[in-house]
Amino acid sequence: MIKVRELARLVGGKIEGDAEREVRSVASLESATPDDLAFVSAKNALERVVSSRAGCILIPEGTFLPGHTVIAVAHPKLAFIKAAKAILPALPPLAGIHPTALISSEARLAPGVSVGPYAVVERGASIGEGTELAAGVFIGEEVQIGERCVLYPHVAVYRGARLGNHVVLHAGVVIGSDGFGYVLAEGRQHKFPQLGGVIIEDDVEIGSNTTVDRGSLGVTTIGAGSKIDNLVQIAHNVHIGRHSIIAAQTGISGGTEIGDYVVIGGQAGIGEHARIESRVLVGGQAGILPGKVIREGSIVWGTPARPFAEFRKLYAHLSGLPELARQVKKLSKKKSKGQYP
Amino acid sequence: MIKVRELARLVGGKIEGDAEREVRSVASLESATPDDLAFVSAKNALERVVSSRAGCILIPEGTFLPGHTVIAVAHPKLAFIKAAKAILPALPPLAGIHPTALISSEARLAPGVSVGPYAVVERGASIGEGTELAAGVFIGEEVQIGERCVLYPHVAVYRGARLGNHVVLHAGVVIGSDGFGYVLAEGRQHKFPQLGGVIIEDDVEIGSNTTVDRGSLGVTTIGAGSKIDNLVQIAHNVHIGRHSIIAAQTGISGGTEIGDYVVIGGQAGIGEHARIESRVLVGGQAGILPGKVIREGSIVWGTPARPFAEFRKLYAHLSGLPELARQVKKLSKKKSKGQYP
Amino acid sequence: MIKVRELARLVGGKIEGDAEREVRSVASLESATPDDLAFVSAKNALERVVSSRAGCILIPEGTFLPGHTVIAVAHPKLAFIKAAKAILPALPPLAGIHPTALISSEARLAPGVSVGPYAVVERGASIGEGTELAAGVFIGEEVQIGERCVLYPHVAVYRGARLGNHVVLHAGVVIGSDGFGYVLAEGRQHKFPQLGGVIIEDDVEIGSNTTVDRGSLGVTTIGAGSKIDNLVQIAHNVHIGRHSIIAAQTGISGGTEIGDYVVIGGQAGIGEHARIESRVLVGGQAGILPGKVIREGSIVWGTPARPFAEFRKLYAHLSGLPELARQVKKLSKKKSKGQYP
Repeated sequence: MIKVRELARLVGGKIEGDAEREVRSVASLESATPDDLAFVSAKNALERVVSSRAGCILIPEGTFLPGHTVIAVAHPKLAFIKAAKAILPALPPLAGIHPTALISSEARLAPGVSVGPYAVVERGASIGEGTELAAGVFIGEEVQIGERCVLYPHVAVYRGARLGNHVVLHAGVVIGSDGFGYVLAEGRQHKFPQLGGVIIEDDVEIGSNTTVDRGSLGVTTIGAGSKIDNLVQIAHNVHIGRHSIIAAQTGISGGTEIGDYVVIGGQAGIGEHARIESRVLVGGQAGILPGKVIREGSIVWGTPARPFAEFRKLYAHLSGLPELARQVKKLSKKKSKGQYP
Repeated sequence: MIKVRELARLVGGKIEGDAEREVRSVASLESATPDDLAFVSAKNALERVVSSRAGCILIPEGTFLPGHTVIAVAHPKLAFIKAAKAILPALPPLAGIHPTALISSEARLAPGVSVGPYAVVERGASIGEGTELAAGVFIGEEVQIGERCVLYPHVAVYRGARLGNHVVLHAGVVIGSDGFGYVLAEGRQHKFPQLGGVIIEDDVEIGSNTTVDRGSLGVTTIGAGSKIDNLVQIAHNVHIGRHSIIAAQTGISGGTEIGDYVVIGGQAGIGEHARIESRVLVGGQAGILPGKVIREGSIVWGTPARPFAEFRKLYAHLSGLPELARQVKKLSKKKSKGQYP
Repeated sequence: MIKVRELARLVGGKIEGDAEREVRSVASLESATPDDLAFVSAKNALERVVSSRAGCILIPEGTFLPGHTVIAVAHPKLAFIKAAKAILPALPPLAGIHPTALISSEARLAPGVSVGPYAVVERGASIGEGTELAAGVFIGEEVQIGERCVLYPHVAVYRGARLGNHVVLHAGVVIGSDGFGYVLAEGRQHKFPQLGGVIIEDDVEIGSNTTVDRGSLGVTTIGAGSKIDNLVQIAHNVHIGRHSIIAAQTGISGGTEIGDYVVIGGQAGIGEHARIESRVLVGGQAGILPGKVIREGSIVWGTPARPFAEFRKLYAHLSGLPELARQVKKLSKKKSKGQYP
């Protein structure tokens, strides 16, 4: 329970309405009750906003919503995120170490670590303070995990991988499996050594069933604050910078570098040894060829990927292709007439 | 063991041949023995049909197959499915609760529930009659599961998700992981609250390693009778209607709505807040842009997706592009000749 | 620890430099210390090679690297793979059967099998000599696994699947889940029987979270020596030949046949009942239509896939489309002028 007055202070906003009102939870405009905080995003139709029963609504500065208790802020969605942290109950206290968790006597667990039933922690592993390993998690030998991480059920971390602090791995994530490299010779595939490591920095979150391979000889790295969606493939020796966003089912091939603040749409595919510089935006389903460099700040789309403006123009021309063909046919006929009258 | 006479009654078909013959199992035309029932599909070459050793063959009404015991029906494949249910042995009796299954004393299990080794059922969960949880399944707090469901090994259902009756989840499926929503501000990604639920209605089947995220504030829903293949991504707040079919590796972005009887091919990608109305057919690898509406009953193809007829025409024009360019070159030359003689 | 002299003999190469030098491990040119063996690939810039601190470098025949101890061989990368096998320590001795592993009294385990904690082996299963099942692996009834296989954590093998020798399945792989086949009738989806098997031959390696469905009536097969990357979908009744390579997130639909020595790039999609003959190369993100035949040795690209040369030409024409449209516009104007002067 928190007063509107306190929320306004927290998010740096200006109240219109009842500053003493209290909210207990957060919700969308549609489902909110008088106990809830909601927010208005640019997409919300006015009608939905006006009819909301929310106890308090975060609205953009310069807008008005008579008859509702509101807090006007520069960025309502961001304010909502911050307010939700204050309103929602803290996580339940960690459950401690379940008696069925198998923890090697040669592993090092900091105080306050929680390990769920049937989880396995092998020798040489170290787990930082306040980290939670859920049911059935597997932590291989010599793995290092920082503080206040959450590993959901059935995550598997192969030997030697290193995770920073506040890392979140959703169910079924695999970290450190072998990279995919073979040399065809003498009629069969010879496997290249996959001996390298994986380093996942602080505040990375990785979605369900995503796979991150270890480096072959070098290291696979995911920079601090980057967020990766479900079912993404990160191959051996990929380097991802900081605060980048990679949507579901994207695949990043071996040796590719991704900069900081990059945004990659869903199902994009990036070839080997490409370089996606910082602040690039890659469209969903785009395909980037091996070795390609995408310059800082550019927006690319399509397969093979092109600058978005060019893609859009081409796409318009493509749609006009039947008409173009008709015109050419007409021209050819006239021409013919002209020549053989 | 069942007689041809009984099968014919069951599927509403007409026998030619030996009505007293008995079959014990089902098989394809090629591998069938005299103990097996087989069926003819439109794709089967006549030669394969004639040489089949099957004890009984389901054939389309109006066709003939002298020398074989056959049952003529309107829809042989459907009849085969129904007959197979009668012929094949019922599932083995449920194994009961394995002594290593960890079931919270605050969970509610109906009679006849089977829980495999090393499965975990947390407090507040409820499991309906005849439901089977295989080895290593994880059921979070407050999860509700209906009757006669099957959850294969290593399925993880996060807290609060709700499953109807006869739901089948194949190995490695993750239900209820956090949606993927961030706001970039102050130099880092702020995670949007992911508090919503997941509702999976009756008779839904979901393939291996598919992921279904919870709603952010609202709910993610999958309607009764819909079937989802392996490695599919269903994002937060997606709503899928009834009896729809979604093939492998398709990704559906946040807030998108899919109607009833929709069919989506493999590796299709659907952007955020799109609406795919009922009975739409989306081609494999198609890409549907965010916010796009695909009208009821239409067939779309390509990226960005277009009506199939248009796609086909464009594609033919695309193939003709080199010839078109040649013609234009020729026209330009003639023109030039005409102008500067 | 191994002498350069011995390595040269092993890989059939010619030494320049100190044949008595010893190496202990392998590394990339950049990270190598004087204790390491490295190799030069075609991609390595000369500067990187010259400045390497590696104790010994495998170089291509006919090249020179004064000041370094080198071994000249026909294929340095292949030689490196072979040398690494000799240099790197053998795998640790198998751990034996963990006391928490649940092995049916009706399963058959050869001597020297290792079964990790919380793994489950059901009745009728047989596991060959030297095979290792990691933590949490699930082996269903009647599954057959050959010798010296490695199944990483949380692999699930459904009942009846058969694996050869030296098969490697990475974490989260699912073998033998039901194929995806439904018939829409009477307003709902009827599931086709999924009774078939899966056969995985010797020396197959399959990446994390990949899914392989059982045959519906027939069998799904993966031929000896084929290598499959992470998050790949192999549908029911697919047949893959020998020594083929399938990169991450590719999907192969039901009933499709893939030959020997085929290479398929990442995120390719192959429709039902297609046939990809031996030594075909399928580009990343390519889409192959159902029923399509790709002839032996061809290279295909794009969606729908075309021969690479044709794709490249088309793609160039596509890029020229705005210019072509401009030309046609110009021609149309001139024409008009000529006609109505």
